[in-house]
Amino acid sequence: MPKIRKILVANRGEIAVRVMRTCKELGIATVAVYSEADRSALHVRTADQAFLVGPPPSRESYLVQERILEAAKKAGADAIHPGYGFLSENASFVRACEKAGITFIGPPASAMDAMGEKTRARQNMIKAGVPVVPGTAEPIATVEEARAYAEKIGVPVMLKAAGGGGGKGMRKVERMEDFESSWRAAKSEAMNAFGNDAVYIEKYLEKPHHVEIQVFADQYGNTIHLNERECSAQRRHQKVVEETPSPILTPEMRAKMGEVAVKAAKAVGYVGAGTVEFLVDVHRNFYFLEMNTRLQVEHPVTEWVTGLDLVAWQIKVAEGEKLPYTEAPKPNGHSIEVRIYAEDPARNFMPSPGRINYLRVPGGPYLRDDSGVFPGYTVPNTYDPMISKLSVWAPTRREAIERAKRALTEYVVKGITTNTRYLKGILSHPEFVEGDYDTSFLTREHETLLGKGEDPQLTEAALLASVVYAYQRDQKRAKTLTQAPTEGGKGGISAWRQASRRGR
Amino acid sequence: MPKIRKILVANRGEIAVRVMRTCKELGIATVAVYSEADRSALHVRTADQAFLVGPPPSRESYLVQERILEAAKKAGADAIHPGYGFLSENASFVRACEKAGITFIGPPASAMDAMGEKTRARQNMIKAGVPVVPGTAEPIATVEEARAYAEKIGVPVMLKAAGGGGGKGMRKVERMEDFESSWRAAKSEAMNAFGNDAVYIEKYLEKPHHVEIQVFADQYGNTIHLNERECSAQRRHQKVVEETPSPILTPEMRAKMGEVAVKAAKAVGYVGAGTVEFLVDVHRNFYFLEMNTRLQVEHPVTEWVTGLDLVAWQIKVAEGEKLPYTEAPKPNGHSIEVRIYAEDPARNFMPSPGRINYLRVPGGPYLRDDSGVFPGYTVPNTYDPMISKLSVWAPTRREAIERAKRALTEYVVKGITTNTRYLKGILSHPEFVEGDYDTSFLTREHETLLGKGEDPQLTEAALLASVVYAYQRDQKRAKTLTQAPTEGGKGGISAWRQASRRGR
Repeated sequence: MPKIRKILVANRGEIAVRVMRTCKELGIATVAVYSEADRSALHVRTADQAFLVGPPPSRESYLVQERILEAAKKAGADAIHPGYGFLSENASFVRACEKAGITFIGPPASAMDAMGEKTRARQNMIKAGVPVVPGTAEPIATVEEARAYAEKIGVPVMLKAAGGGGGKGMRKVERMEDFESSWRAAKSEAMNAFGNDAVYIEKYLEKPHHVEIQVFADQYGNTIHLNERECSAQRRHQKVVEETPSPILTPEMRAKMGEVAVKAAKAVGYVGAGTVEFLVDVHRNFYFLEMNTRLQVEHPVTEWVTGLDLVAWQIKVAEGEKLPYTEAPKPNGHSIEVRIYAEDPARNFMPSPGRINYLRVPGGPYLRDDSGVFPGYTVPNTYDPMISKLSVWAPTRREAIERAKRALTEYVVKGITTNTRYLKGILSHPEFVEGDYDTSFLTREHETLLGKGEDPQLTEAALLASVVYAYQRDQKRAKTLTQAPTEGGKGGISAWRQASRRGR
Repeated sequence: MPKIRKILVANRGEIAVRVMRTCKELGIATVAVYSEADRSALHVRTADQAFLVGPPPSRESYLVQERILEAAKKAGADAIHPGYGFLSENASFVRACEKAGITFIGPPASAMDAMGEKTRARQNMIKAGVPVVPGTAEPIATVEEARAYAEKIGVPVMLKAAGGGGGKGMRKVERMEDFESSWRAAKSEAMNAFGNDAVYIEKYLEKPHHVEIQVFADQYGNTIHLNERECSAQRRHQKVVEETPSPILTPEMRAKMGEVAVKAAKAVGYVGAGTVEFLVDVHRNFYFLEMNTRLQVEHPVTEWVTGLDLVAWQIKVAEGEKLPYTEAPKPNGHSIEVRIYAEDPARNFMPSPGRINYLRVPGGPYLRDDSGVFPGYTVPNTYDPMISKLSVWAPTRREAIERAKRALTEYVVKGITTNTRYLKGILSHPEFVEGDYDTSFLTREHETLLGKGEDPQLTEAALLASVVYAYQRDQKRAKTLTQAPTEGGKGGISAWRQASRRGR
């Protein structure tokens, strides 16, 4: 297979920039696509070429397959990297790329099909011997059958619509007395939402952990896993903090889950980078949740502990190279990623779009900033408000937590509100520090988390704002001060901070 | 020994910030000192407390031992970290700290004394069996003796003043006919510079490599090395680019040089982080050059390939902890550091102080920015104009070079001139890429290096400047563009760049 020379990145924000960085290092030319809302976006500036593909919202630009393909043809791109979201898990787009003779950097359409729909994926996994959450493989016909099944596996159970997701047609049943009313409600909601009232039953897992396994496969059937990521720090099913290794996994569990994830990928003929997500219950049993057939937001933590560049390997696999090893590399040290959003946690995480008037990103040892913004950039209200991912590495988990907290303290963003203080609250919470936090953690500890953590922006912003004041004060004191230091302690810098804080 | 709770960092710029970062991660309070020129400096903002210690230049502030110690006492600091430069290799300051009951984070005064003066260090090393550049151990009394010695070891030789350094009283002799006149000139210059006309002779090494070994010792005599750094990319004896592993070292040479460096450190009772510098000749013989009894500017490359935090280990050793291992960790991958200066390479590297109006630092995988500046900061004309150190890691040297070039391209600094383009020129030069570059490289290739490398600032600056133009043009084209992409290629972003470049 010939080498890829030019890649169109069919995405925006940090992931588009991240993919282009690797392209540059590999000597591959880059093509951006952008919507009218993204004219001055970082990914457009980072690329060698850029094509406008329509107005926001995404369905009129980033999701319009023909526009993306036309841009690729005009630019002479021989491959398309889809990033995550948008067209990244769209099997029809993969087929359209094939038809146009453009390499899609991702799995084949058939693997996407096999994993794309909930009950189908579930059936495929059961067939492959992958443990799924106990439940029915297919929708249940009658309420009597359903009731009998629920009694067999025991409450709590989840009733789920077979025809679609997003929480529609989903009901948790805690007591058998409520079974029939919940059943009717689920079916009726499913019919309204998807025109299909088929419902199936799953065991409801109490306070599960979300642990996922990164898998990688080449075009020759070689499939390996690259260990796990712990992603239980979620808010409304959105990951907020991710780490690897998972603090709850034993080497035996890691090996077993890795093996199962590889089996899952092989069962669908997977190629490239993918993630098999599992729920882990209190007894440390694990169950297949779903497979993400693309690069994940949180891939940097895996890169930190393996030394790999996953995007480079996606490209190399697409070019026909073989995987560099035959088994999972032993993870080296610990990595944590936090997602930085333009949002206000104190106001129910309301997005905070606007112009970034001032930006200072953290620096120093073992720290990575994957950003989609720059000083002077206006965060649009059109897209996901994630502006950056901050990830750190350290030999141990304890050190990684301290490093991440230190890094968050250095983050200075003015003009918009961000969640850095909230993130620091998570990293400082005893449950997080202890390491056994489940998917209920962020919701359960919501109030505590909002109060925790010194406001890093306030600290720095206050300092910046008070430079003039401090200078004037210093000028007055200068004579004394050059004789002998009299600042510090309750005076000096600490005093600037206190004074500025009181003023807010 | 009790844990250190508060550290005064007796330095400024990036190294002060870097030390404080580790302190924060270890839960140690930090105290800054600053001169009148550094009131709004980053290290002052980063510290928990700050003390003004006098006006510039350094001899009236950062070098005034009593002021530094008084600030430490007022702040209640139990230790002082000296960084590099300033008081970091001043044995009398170490003694003053001891007397004041404050832990100096560095080697004992006796080790500094033993390595501080050129001929004494040389004699100590000869005694310890460490290879030094062939030459006389002591000054030579008569010109006849000197001539005979020079004939024995063969030209070219260097005549060097015993009493001091900095190039004074130094003469290279290439032909024996010139020996006597050079001898007289060296002695006379030495007398004028140091009040001491003692001169000794060393073999002159043609095009040597500068390779140094990082050593680390605890308080119990355990001394290890942490492999080498190749620092041959020098301009006027100032390192510009550093890397590890050295591309010219075999595993056998690494082991041998490491062993010798440990021997050198042990010979002087060394404690903490130190660096033994060697010259390596064309035959790959290596000779002791000097020992730097402190942390080096280029320590990040060693951190990248070992996973250690050298500052954390300096602090732990000062607290009385034992070293974590008994032998050198195997280096993992490759790391390169480039020093970013506020200077204009095209104007003979003239410093370019001034206000940083805009700053965007590179991001993405395996990249580290150790900066002493921030957007809005005014680089003073008082101190060394290094504003940042950019270091990268990759599995292989070739990938590390590409990553460093990519990172330099992302660096955007406006308001001052920097050497990023020059650095990119070095990384792109065939001699550097090939890996066998000696200390004459930068001087020899000066003209070529100035011409090489696309100007990364120009690229980005041009883009920023042309956003308005591009926006207007896009507005006009919008109708067409949302129908079908017509940008890219010779139009689009590439065109902005070309247009802006032509305009300059």
